[in-house]
Amino acid sequence: MSEAEAATELDGSAPPFDVFARQCPSRGTLEHVTGRWGSLTLGALSGNRLRFNELRRRVDGVSEKMLSQTLHALERDGLVHREAQPTNPPRVDYELTPLGHEVAGRLLGLIQLVEGRMPEVLDARGRYDGARGA
Amino acid sequence: MSEAEAATELDGSAPPFDVFARQCPSRGTLEHVTGRWGSLTLGALSGNRLRFNELRRRVDGVSEKMLSQTLHALERDGLVHREAQPTNPPRVDYELTPLGHEVAGRLLGLIQLVEGRMPEVLDARGRYDGARGA
Repeated sequence: MSEAEAATELDGSAPPFDVFARQCPSRGTLEHVTGRWGSLTLGALSGNRLRFNELRRRVDGVSEKMLSQTLHALERDGLVHREAQPTNPPRVDYELTPLGHEVAGRLLGLIQLVEGRMPEVLDARGRYDGARGA
Repeated sequence: MSEAEAATELDGSAPPFDVFARQCPSRGTLEHVTGRWGSLTLGALSGNRLRFNELRRRVDGVSEKMLSQTLHALERDGLVHREAQPTNPPRVDYELTPLGHEVAGRLLGLIQLVEGRMPEVLDARGRYDGARGA
């Protein structure tokens, strides 16, 4: 089934896209946005125009191959804009599109909440592991 | 430079948790929250107290094993509360903790943004594939 057909199957009474439905194309986009490297890449590009290697340093731990795949998926979904300068050697910059900015904004809100509440999370882990004798 | 880094430069106190640092435990929690099944599980539990099989029907496509692993990780991080009733057969309910509610709220904001902007995403995919003769 094509993405358009999957979208058509969802009739007009329901919201047209639903990440909870397994064939809905919105689920794939959510995965690109929230995936391990997708979320960090969008976060790193928030407010920054970066070259590939700058981005790779910022997203600590990502391989060249994974960052490249992540950027292609985000570019294809219209969230990241790739601009190759006609220089020698070629210089390629990445930046968020307007839609990418909106998505990254929500994502950063989530990231900041998680970072800020880690003491509670670590306490919960300690209780969970303690109750199981780990 | 991220906002967190900028803040550090100003007041000199290192932010204690940073998802961009590969060893920071906040990265693991972000992955539990935003992972393929974690995000849908938190979304499904938002405002609902559900049994395992109800949850499995809502999160279309998840296997029993993956849902079980996802729930354990979210319970360990203090985002989901598991309550076993002493009935025969035993009945187990899952619901969000207060922190889980906050996280799910941010996540649902992101999900709704993605669902609402899928027409733009699909247009972008069409242009991307067209430019590459796909």
